[in-house]
Amino acid sequence: MSLRFAERMLGEKSNVVKEALKLTAQPDIISFAGGLPAPESFPINEIELASAKLFVEKGTSAVQYNCMEGLPALRNKIAERMTSCHNINCTADEIMITSGSQQGIDMSGRIFLNPGDYVVCESPTYTAAVTTYKNYQANFLAIDTDDEGMIIEDLAAKLATCPNAKLIYVIPNYQNPSGKTWSVERRKALLQYAEQYNIPIVEDNPYGELRYEGEELPSIKSMDTKGLVLYMGSFSKVLCPGFRVGYIISSPEIMDMLCQVKQSTDLQSSTFTQMVIFQYLTDNDIDKHILELRAIYKHKRDLMLGTMEKCFPKEAKFTYPHGGMFTWVELPKEIDTQELFPKAIAKKVAYIPGATFFPNGGVNNCLRMSYSSSSDEQIIKGITALGELFTEAVAALKK
Amino acid sequence: MSLRFAERMLGEKSNVVKEALKLTAQPDIISFAGGLPAPESFPINEIELASAKLFVEKGTSAVQYNCMEGLPALRNKIAERMTSCHNINCTADEIMITSGSQQGIDMSGRIFLNPGDYVVCESPTYTAAVTTYKNYQANFLAIDTDDEGMIIEDLAAKLATCPNAKLIYVIPNYQNPSGKTWSVERRKALLQYAEQYNIPIVEDNPYGELRYEGEELPSIKSMDTKGLVLYMGSFSKVLCPGFRVGYIISSPEIMDMLCQVKQSTDLQSSTFTQMVIFQYLTDNDIDKHILELRAIYKHKRDLMLGTMEKCFPKEAKFTYPHGGMFTWVELPKEIDTQELFPKAIAKKVAYIPGATFFPNGGVNNCLRMSYSSSSDEQIIKGITALGELFTEAVAALKK
Repeated sequence: MSLRFAERMLGEKSNVVKEALKLTAQPDIISFAGGLPAPESFPINEIELASAKLFVEKGTSAVQYNCMEGLPALRNKIAERMTSCHNINCTADEIMITSGSQQGIDMSGRIFLNPGDYVVCESPTYTAAVTTYKNYQANFLAIDTDDEGMIIEDLAAKLATCPNAKLIYVIPNYQNPSGKTWSVERRKALLQYAEQYNIPIVEDNPYGELRYEGEELPSIKSMDTKGLVLYMGSFSKVLCPGFRVGYIISSPEIMDMLCQVKQSTDLQSSTFTQMVIFQYLTDNDIDKHILELRAIYKHKRDLMLGTMEKCFPKEAKFTYPHGGMFTWVELPKEIDTQELFPKAIAKKVAYIPGATFFPNGGVNNCLRMSYSSSSDEQIIKGITALGELFTEAVAALKK
Repeated sequence: MSLRFAERMLGEKSNVVKEALKLTAQPDIISFAGGLPAPESFPINEIELASAKLFVEKGTSAVQYNCMEGLPALRNKIAERMTSCHNINCTADEIMITSGSQQGIDMSGRIFLNPGDYVVCESPTYTAAVTTYKNYQANFLAIDTDDEGMIIEDLAAKLATCPNAKLIYVIPNYQNPSGKTWSVERRKALLQYAEQYNIPIVEDNPYGELRYEGEELPSIKSMDTKGLVLYMGSFSKVLCPGFRVGYIISSPEIMDMLCQVKQSTDLQSSTFTQMVIFQYLTDNDIDKHILELRAIYKHKRDLMLGTMEKCFPKEAKFTYPHGGMFTWVELPKEIDTQELFPKAIAKKVAYIPGATFFPNGGVNNCLRMSYSSSSDEQIIKGITALGELFTEAVAALKK
């Protein structure tokens, strides 16, 4: 007899991203597929000191159970920083520590989605958010995007015909996968529609502090007067991802629901890693550290984009990200980047085929690349090889 | 306009356990309510050494992303130990690292339960498992128990009338809340019924290694030839809970589903805390440490039970746990332990009223107490006070 799994588990397919990442784990492959932070960017000495201090000062309480919502001291620190640096006025009571931002996304699905509900999202968008919301048996209202974010006319038209739209998911800064940033006007317009239709917004902002040019734009949360926005932040990209510490800022009503879910899901995030982060933030100037991070990643971005300009055929269009970790490449419509993928692997370079980022599929000529964890040499060698591949592919079309 | 939450979030009530724990956080209260491990039992010096070594030997990889299923080295170590010490033959491929056992329980609900399905469980059982499965909109087939575990006649009768029984949840060793241990015969009988009806079993074993007397009894997983058992283990009670590292041992078919859920839920558990535990296990003899733990807790158990024998009225029956952290008290039927609770707090002692442990309610004269984190003085003082309270309550019945 076979096991009887829940309906939500059926019809799941093998994960394209996971398969791509497995392939690219071969040591001789230059991988632009993942979005790993650069290990040389981790303040490992400061983290080591913070950790050592904990054992001396906190002793056994550093490895005991603690609060479900997260360490009060850490939540306070985050509230202070968000209020003073990012214009998001909040108190510790409005902050829930999560085991990475991914858990925040999962919890948002859990508290808002019934089977058959629709999630409004950018097209393309972050694959693991789509997979998560699909696990809640959601459908997707995938809104067309341009260089300034969602196209508001498309949003308006689609919302008008979809009474089951229950949640909006967006990444306004240096979006994954496109690298694009929403304009202030689009942020405001989205919030207006969210208010009109009473739909909460998940504003996922893992990359917001990795800004290489331009001014910081106001978050949607900073303009939220109705308590509709769940802002998701994370220490994964600005300190280190292996601690699994992220956070949600939301209204008290939503916090109550998040608490119920957190208790069911894993009781609490790790006391120890939360305390190390608190100690790091207490003893160090994270803003200074972030300036160093920006320098590291800006250099990588400039090198990758510069090499692409030199080596890619003119038929390949790509985004110029002002921050974050990704650029998005669009090849002529006739080229299927999934079909091209084995040829890239044969040249020892990897990307992620773009189709996986479209919740309802249908677009096959794009791909995502990350410059975040490759060396200069790898970037030049890998992009040059891809340039050859794309030039060949474009030439083959003209025959 | 009010927010439209998912159906699974509606009808949730304020959490009795959470409220009780809040009350008992007052510093002058002697609390037998929680089930916190004794902090003096944490091998904090060895953990400190393991942590320091990591920074030297692993550097940035200790705080980078790692495998979704958990650190391969740690999964190997667990597989070796379970095979050689606990007769559960398994390989690393059958092991998923979870963020504490609670996450394992949550994942089991996620992969097996549709709304309206039934979870077969002991009555009483672990409250947070009930809350979690309720979040998947499950109902409960609560099976009567005696000193040897589920009463098999009750199990058989209830299973025969319930086609939607989809998951079995049991704690065979030193059960929470009762402190009871299942006999080998009952374990075998449960497995037989699970096979007959093709229902997977979650065998939750957080306390199994905290054995103070008697022989280790075979786990249900060790007798499982059909891949029906999800065995849940944890480092929370034998090392420290603040790292949030537990594990599930299950068949490859179930592992595939768990992987999908893990990726959606939090990508992976903390790399760092997994590495510290691996390093601890490599450099230390955990079995020797467990012997020390047993001595600490056996002393506390003996003191609490001995004091109860002296101070409690003869009308109060209680279990004599062979391991774990809990004893379960049954007062005369007319006494409601929830109503009695404020009087206990007035005497500066706390327990957990028993009603919360019955998934379908209906039993009000019981309570759970833990001896795990109280000092000798607290145990004697607190139990003496409760003895007075219960004696008064029993006397009031006779008036």
